[in-house]
Amino acid sequence: MEGALHLKLTVRFCTEDNDRCFGPGIATLLRQVQALHSLRAAAASMGMAYSKAWRILRASESSLGYKLLSSTIGGPHGGGAVLTPQGEALLNAYEAYCDQIRIYSEALFQKQFGGGVQIPQE
Amino acid sequence: MEGALHLKLTVRFCTEDNDRCFGPGIATLLRQVQALHSLRAAAASMGMAYSKAWRILRASESSLGYKLLSSTIGGPHGGGAVLTPQGEALLNAYEAYCDQIRIYSEALFQKQFGGGVQIPQE
Repeated sequence: MEGALHLKLTVRFCTEDNDRCFGPGIATLLRQVQALHSLRAAAASMGMAYSKAWRILRASESSLGYKLLSSTIGGPHGGGAVLTPQGEALLNAYEAYCDQIRIYSEALFQKQFGGGVQIPQE
Repeated sequence: MEGALHLKLTVRFCTEDNDRCFGPGIATLLRQVQALHSLRAAAASMGMAYSKAWRILRASESSLGYKLLSSTIGGPHGGGAVLTPQGEALLNAYEAYCDQIRIYSEALFQKQFGGGVQIPQE
């Protein structure tokens, strides 16, 4: 399996104690809410328990100090959840930031490890 | 707590299925083995069970296709564990790579988020 290892990068925005973070889990959840207009459906689409989705959402909102989702009543989707403007702005900023780091890191990985971790020569 | 979130980056070298990785856990463990000349002492210094240390070491070695540690018999340290030349080379390369990504990512984080995630303006 030599040379087969690839780069996996995880970007999180964390509280000082690293206890609560805005990372890939909540980001994917928010994108799914945007697509499905429901926290419950978003969680289900990720194979995540609704109670866990609710918990990581509340933890993120508490860390950030603002709401990421707001509830809608009625309307074309028959009520459900949508991202707040702040939630959408943060999600977009997070993803754009991740993309930039990935591009840099992958290029450096290719350069230093030839695209896969090799057995170092003695 | 607005603006208090900082960047936390995790770099892993993973197998294709993302099942097994060389990341911060095994890297810290190897550094501790280097300092303490013992896998058992290294695990204890991290508050990690010896059985877990053994497991992640074996998993990493199996992913990479080479040994990271070798046992010594007798000598100044009375026997124990040392890093193989390949293990040391990989560890150094991993840490140097992480440092470079951190420098880039922190600079970008400062630039884009002013050093802390702020409430986006609507």
